[in-house]
Amino acid sequence: MDKLQRNERVSALIKILCDSPGKIFTLGYFAEMFGSAKSTISEDIDIAGNTLKRFELGNIETIPGAAGGVRLMPFLGRGRVHEVLHSLCGELSKSERILPGDYIYMLDIICDPERISKIARIFAGHFFSQGVDYVVTVETKGIPLAFETAKHLNVPLVIVRHYNEATDGSSVNINYVSGSSKKIQTMVLSLKALRRKSRLLFIDDFMKGGGTAKGILELAKEFDCEVAGIGVLIETARPQKKLVDNYFSLLTLNEVNEAKDLIDIKPSISWV
Amino acid sequence: MDKLQRNERVSALIKILCDSPGKIFTLGYFAEMFGSAKSTISEDIDIAGNTLKRFELGNIETIPGAAGGVRLMPFLGRGRVHEVLHSLCGELSKSERILPGDYIYMLDIICDPERISKIARIFAGHFFSQGVDYVVTVETKGIPLAFETAKHLNVPLVIVRHYNEATDGSSVNINYVSGSSKKIQTMVLSLKALRRKSRLLFIDDFMKGGGTAKGILELAKEFDCEVAGIGVLIETARPQKKLVDNYFSLLTLNEVNEAKDLIDIKPSISWV
Repeated sequence: MDKLQRNERVSALIKILCDSPGKIFTLGYFAEMFGSAKSTISEDIDIAGNTLKRFELGNIETIPGAAGGVRLMPFLGRGRVHEVLHSLCGELSKSERILPGDYIYMLDIICDPERISKIARIFAGHFFSQGVDYVVTVETKGIPLAFETAKHLNVPLVIVRHYNEATDGSSVNINYVSGSSKKIQTMVLSLKALRRKSRLLFIDDFMKGGGTAKGILELAKEFDCEVAGIGVLIETARPQKKLVDNYFSLLTLNEVNEAKDLIDIKPSISWV
Repeated sequence: MDKLQRNERVSALIKILCDSPGKIFTLGYFAEMFGSAKSTISEDIDIAGNTLKRFELGNIETIPGAAGGVRLMPFLGRGRVHEVLHSLCGELSKSERILPGDYIYMLDIICDPERISKIARIFAGHFFSQGVDYVVTVETKGIPLAFETAKHLNVPLVIVRHYNEATDGSSVNINYVSGSSKKIQTMVLSLKALRRKSRLLFIDDFMKGGGTAKGILELAKEFDCEVAGIGVLIETARPQKKLVDNYFSLLTLNEVNEAKDLIDIKPSISWV
């Protein structure tokens, strides 16, 4: 193989880090791949990392020691967070999204890969320091966002279901009360799905009363796991008191009013 | 801003292309961002593209003309496809995955972000030339794979559901017959979900009789859309005759036998 130039090495290096966000690669891995000294790779990483930081594109972390290496950290610069959330509010405020019963149509938003990828990077950056082992969601609408968050945190996704299926194997059922409608619902999770003593991040698209999140806290107990974080894309302003205390929401839905042709939604984060 | 060096420009450029796979960026976009001439950017792109090709990491396409630019094409090199599919077969063949009724436990696989991302790149690469407008899946287990495939094709995902919800708005229901169990099931899709005359790619994790895929063909008709491709992660060897003719499967499940403690699964693609 011809000797690689620095700009060739950084091209390959960044692509590899992007393909597996959060995964640790040793310097030796790149040294062998490129036929270069580890000191050279180390300089390559500095250049790549500084450039990503300069353009608010990402953050490459160097982990020292024998098990060390480099990884792409989940990150979205403040300017981009501002842009993403205000663009979402603009899109979600369109009155044609109002559905009967003062619901909002948002299936297109929660299935839009580019938007979801950016939102997931906000969640992954926020919860990274919690050291979570799994991202958990309840089917169906939060799955794309939860999957993408899990990807940026380099942990598996776990999907909690409403009904048991033969392909789940033996499972745990819990009943929980919806926070808003007060209806009793069921959550089902395969016994194989979680290692005991794990730390979970619950991600969902929407929180009204917080009943689903509370159900996840109960379910976690049955698996001897801990919920280390709760992230929701949209929370409703009412009821103000949710069934869970600590959660991180990106947008607050103040009002949907079909009669007034109005949707009032704002970023929840104070600095946005 | 200091003048950027080539290795800094290619670092930022590759990260931007990776963050939005399939999306077209103009040379002018990068020229403005980096304060460089378009001819310089064009050389940067050549270097980045040649390096990705050399390491089988990806494929940067240059689109000529006024609406032109560059984009990261969905791609996984043949060597990597081989590695991904054989690793999957190894993992799925483990006899502890056998569930009562000769089912396989595979929830961990279909929720593993790194594996799913690679599998999605195989599908996206295979179907890219079909010019699809949407990736469609039926809830629940195929959602991560379908979402990731949509991301690499730079098109929206559409999730077909089994029950109508208030947040879907007005919807179309169709009944279809499961190919294996012959049970009648329902598919529901919001009327807002698809533009008429679109081309759809149906992605699912599993195909036995092909009833779900046939249901999607029926549903597409109701929306005046066309199914341009069907991709499934695993098909069963029996029944050999499925309810749909043209589909692309990655793995073939020949046998699950609890009594013999055996799972026999092989890549479906001849050259793997």
